[in-house]
Amino acid sequence: MMSSTDLDAVMTELGERARAASRILALTPSAAKDKALRAAAQAIRIDAKLILAANAQDMEAGTAKGLSASMLDRLMLNSARIEAMAKGLEDIARLPDPVGRSLAEWTRPNGIHISRVAVPLGVIGIIYESRPNVTADAAALCLKSGNATILRGGSESFHSSQAILRALKGGFTACGLPADAVQMVPTTDREAVGVMLRLSDYIDVIVPRGGKSLVERVVAESRIPLFQHLEGICHTYVDGSADLEMAKAVVLNAKMRRTGICGATETLLVDAACAKTHLAPLVAMLIDAGCEVRGDQQAMQADGRVLPAAEADWSTEYLDAIISVKVVDGVKAAVDHINTYGSHHTEAILAEDAGAAEAFLNGCDSAIVLWNASTQFADGGEFGMGAEIGISTGKMHARGPVGVEQLCTFKYVVRGSGQVRPG
Amino acid sequence: MMSSTDLDAVMTELGERARAASRILALTPSAAKDKALRAAAQAIRIDAKLILAANAQDMEAGTAKGLSASMLDRLMLNSARIEAMAKGLEDIARLPDPVGRSLAEWTRPNGIHISRVAVPLGVIGIIYESRPNVTADAAALCLKSGNATILRGGSESFHSSQAILRALKGGFTACGLPADAVQMVPTTDREAVGVMLRLSDYIDVIVPRGGKSLVERVVAESRIPLFQHLEGICHTYVDGSADLEMAKAVVLNAKMRRTGICGATETLLVDAACAKTHLAPLVAMLIDAGCEVRGDQQAMQADGRVLPAAEADWSTEYLDAIISVKVVDGVKAAVDHINTYGSHHTEAILAEDAGAAEAFLNGCDSAIVLWNASTQFADGGEFGMGAEIGISTGKMHARGPVGVEQLCTFKYVVRGSGQVRPG
Repeated sequence: MMSSTDLDAVMTELGERARAASRILALTPSAAKDKALRAAAQAIRIDAKLILAANAQDMEAGTAKGLSASMLDRLMLNSARIEAMAKGLEDIARLPDPVGRSLAEWTRPNGIHISRVAVPLGVIGIIYESRPNVTADAAALCLKSGNATILRGGSESFHSSQAILRALKGGFTACGLPADAVQMVPTTDREAVGVMLRLSDYIDVIVPRGGKSLVERVVAESRIPLFQHLEGICHTYVDGSADLEMAKAVVLNAKMRRTGICGATETLLVDAACAKTHLAPLVAMLIDAGCEVRGDQQAMQADGRVLPAAEADWSTEYLDAIISVKVVDGVKAAVDHINTYGSHHTEAILAEDAGAAEAFLNGCDSAIVLWNASTQFADGGEFGMGAEIGISTGKMHARGPVGVEQLCTFKYVVRGSGQVRPG
Repeated sequence: MMSSTDLDAVMTELGERARAASRILALTPSAAKDKALRAAAQAIRIDAKLILAANAQDMEAGTAKGLSASMLDRLMLNSARIEAMAKGLEDIARLPDPVGRSLAEWTRPNGIHISRVAVPLGVIGIIYESRPNVTADAAALCLKSGNATILRGGSESFHSSQAILRALKGGFTACGLPADAVQMVPTTDREAVGVMLRLSDYIDVIVPRGGKSLVERVVAESRIPLFQHLEGICHTYVDGSADLEMAKAVVLNAKMRRTGICGATETLLVDAACAKTHLAPLVAMLIDAGCEVRGDQQAMQADGRVLPAAEADWSTEYLDAIISVKVVDGVKAAVDHINTYGSHHTEAILAEDAGAAEAFLNGCDSAIVLWNASTQFADGGEFGMGAEIGISTGKMHARGPVGVEQLCTFKYVVRGSGQVRPG
């Protein structure tokens, strides 16, 4: 373990190097960035054996440490996963450059021309846990958007991430980009995260990627703005006007397609107006599909297999084949429930009545609201944004999927001919 | 002074009321908001005598407390200032509604239609010092953008702000808006600010408006995102290609039009390539206009009246008739100086050479960059944005002037016809 003085010095130097690299990256043309991303993809393919050897070291340590099977699966790399990482870099190279876009422009009566232009944020800090592929994905999205990156991976994936980092750096520097475009905190010391979260002079935004306890620590300690995503307590509301067949198809997908992703529906709300016809078939369908249903009184009456829901169920992200079910009195009550118990992530309404749908879409204070579509569409790729670095449940700067455009800020560029301000 | 338990309870109740009001305001149509703003303007005119009486109380206390003449001037209200406040509300009523704008929309191959729609941030906390008119300005900008406001004014202006608040609330409620659309922290207890800065469940963004020490405290303590503006250390760089007459006019305006505003130039950088011809006339002009010049060796040689600049001068916001002057070796050195010593606010280049100008505009990591125009244009009104709540030197969400559009966030609205996500 480093002394805290040494740690401060190490982290400050990382920060200074990242800031210097960010100045260069901000001015690097699209073609050079894309070439570097393709070179990094090639370097990862060439280094595949080294990366697999480093991963074997991590897997051995993880097994000895008694990591769960699902943790070990997240940590594990094989040839297919390495190829997917390399392809991911090439996909990001093909995205349009988000830097330099004119977001708005106008001319004032005095003749000055003002444009709002997208520019990189600067330096982005990524704090993540076991999945080593985050190293490549996150660094590539940041580079594409002209940012320097400081990575802080989990201790479990330390060797794998270092090996991936070496390949990335090799590809980037071979194309003339600064070696400090992407750096990794060189210690797994837990204290390093605390120091990183105070480096507000050098890091412009922190993206925590991991479980609730990691994100909660980052939220509590950070002096740096965050793209945070604490939980996805997503709702699907079946309005009285909903078509039952469509509702069944969408609810089944929203809950059961993948239960472990943040866009999975955790609570089903059913309008009292259609409870008689829609509640029993929806609940039976979910239970028959292997989903545990925890419901209110009416849901329990609709199907004897429904377990009683406790108050805590309404604010629980199960990430599993479990759903809570409640009958509510119309769209307004559904919106109130969602704004009270939800996490401002993603909510869907099933309805044929356009007025009910608009009330729901306007009323829910969430990043993504859907009408007659599955909450599982909450994803940057499904939105057509290319890859994403996460989904933000905050309201500031980025909300919903965070892709390369959200990794930019803007500046105002004013062009004049000698104008001065009167008065 | 309240006990800390009482203070927590009072502040939490303020927060809950604001959140409830924000849900209503988010759905309030433009016409209703504009009508309420005009009614509030009328109420301020009708209550002018009460406001002036409250202000007299504050002025008396301030005089007894020994406030400086400039503090007292900021605190003072008269008929003209009250009329300006009322007119300001009417101006804000006339701005286009920023809520509900479609920021982007597209259809995916599977038929789902996605739009990114501007929505209010929610609850905005304003922490300000002596100027009581901030009460009306800030509350009106927040209401226009569909947000609820929690105001925390300075103790010096407490009675004046309370009287203005009563008028605003009267106007708002007469038009059917919730009374809690705008609230004020009911105590001048310093601890209340600390509690407010931790109310992250109820306040979405904090805007500190005041001097450096207030802003520094808020930055250090806040658990809520900020629109912060710490300092305006603005630069004007005179490139070797600059026209001397244009440079003289723009530099004089940038420094001397008003020395106390954040967009005033604090450092003049002169290209070594034109130092022989441009430096002495620029320095002499500034000194002749009553400006103290603190310069490097070359500036001192150019004019015997120039005082020596210390290292600290390069990072000082004078807000006064003082300027620091330095000769730099071309545009790259100017950009390096600005990115090292500046505050990322506003920088201008004077140049005829378009290549030098583009290098400067791209290279400076600042909210506003200008070519052949005065830094004093750094202002929401001058940008055509209507009123502003401040100028942000942060990079997240808002950068530069913060007007009603920046007081909004967005949500993704997805409209489908029963689509489910495959795979």
